[in-house]
Amino acid sequence: MANNNIVPLTELISQFERLPGIGKKTAQRLAYSILEQPPERAEKFAEALINAKRKIHFCKECQGLTDLDTCAICSNETRNRSIICVVAEPKDVMAFERTGEYNGLYHVLHGVISPLDRISPDQLKIKELMSRLSSGEVTEIIMATNPTVEGEATASYISRLVKPMGIKVTRLAYGIPVGSDLEYADQFTLARALEGRNEI
Amino acid sequence: MANNNIVPLTELISQFERLPGIGKKTAQRLAYSILEQPPERAEKFAEALINAKRKIHFCKECQGLTDLDTCAICSNETRNRSIICVVAEPKDVMAFERTGEYNGLYHVLHGVISPLDRISPDQLKIKELMSRLSSGEVTEIIMATNPTVEGEATASYISRLVKPMGIKVTRLAYGIPVGSDLEYADQFTLARALEGRNEI
Repeated sequence: MANNNIVPLTELISQFERLPGIGKKTAQRLAYSILEQPPERAEKFAEALINAKRKIHFCKECQGLTDLDTCAICSNETRNRSIICVVAEPKDVMAFERTGEYNGLYHVLHGVISPLDRISPDQLKIKELMSRLSSGEVTEIIMATNPTVEGEATASYISRLVKPMGIKVTRLAYGIPVGSDLEYADQFTLARALEGRNEI
Repeated sequence: MANNNIVPLTELISQFERLPGIGKKTAQRLAYSILEQPPERAEKFAEALINAKRKIHFCKECQGLTDLDTCAICSNETRNRSIICVVAEPKDVMAFERTGEYNGLYHVLHGVISPLDRISPDQLKIKELMSRLSSGEVTEIIMATNPTVEGEATASYISRLVKPMGIKVTRLAYGIPVGSDLEYADQFTLARALEGRNEI
């Protein structure tokens, strides 16, 4: 008797439910909100879903997301082409762009090395990174994978490949988050923050 | 520089953001999750949105949602046709159906009387309710609008219309929610729970 057998409603709810972090109740609420709005709203939403998937692909340079041949960052002549920030996911690029503090290029690996999830280095965009580095234009890569076991392993794997080429490899600083309370910092973070302390 | 000017991505994020209770961060997460999945996934989602809006309309009897002419509940011959549970929204029907305790019919008002939101009785499906009652088959209506000022006002408005027809009008019981802690019950709820106490 769930949803009184209204098949199109059940189908819409289950589509919402497949989104990450959306449970059954929220999926129902979202589906009903679509039904309450004019049909143009659902059509625009549907169009946006199709368009996003159809038009967005990986940039042939950095493997980030773009609807162009080369993304807006890679084709921006004012950016510093001697430094590449290596990230795991396309959304990490947006996180750095929001800081407004970074003017170099990016490289998106599309994952991290994880034996448990059967993700080996050759499934990541490491070959593509190496071919970009072979031009000799790049002098530093910043390993900006997550501070997790897999992120660390990926950073040191790539570091071992790149260092012999005479390219500087750096890692994001560990430490306490800005605006946080020391009381809530875990022991590992605090230890790293001590280690990396700077003179003021 | 938001989203690096990837127009289809920005558009998808803004569509997710228009859903109730979905903020900017969640909208981004959901949009990226669509990009990470195979194109069939986005197409199915788009199809579900279009279909839901195109195929679902109001049941000509109870004004609830259905993809048929008359909904599965109204056309179910085993249901008690002498009692109608009057609710504000289509989703309220599902809430009662989930209890498995109710075997009568429903009527969906599609809103409650609310002068502040400029919703007057003639914008609700009250005429449709009255015409159902005129057949003489119905002996009781249960007013199951929310226990809010607007829900109460709507319940008493309809009650005043229906009582003269010799039809019994009942209201859902107020009281403490099952499984809750008395400590957290507000004074009004507790007062109503006292008022409505039953012998055990």
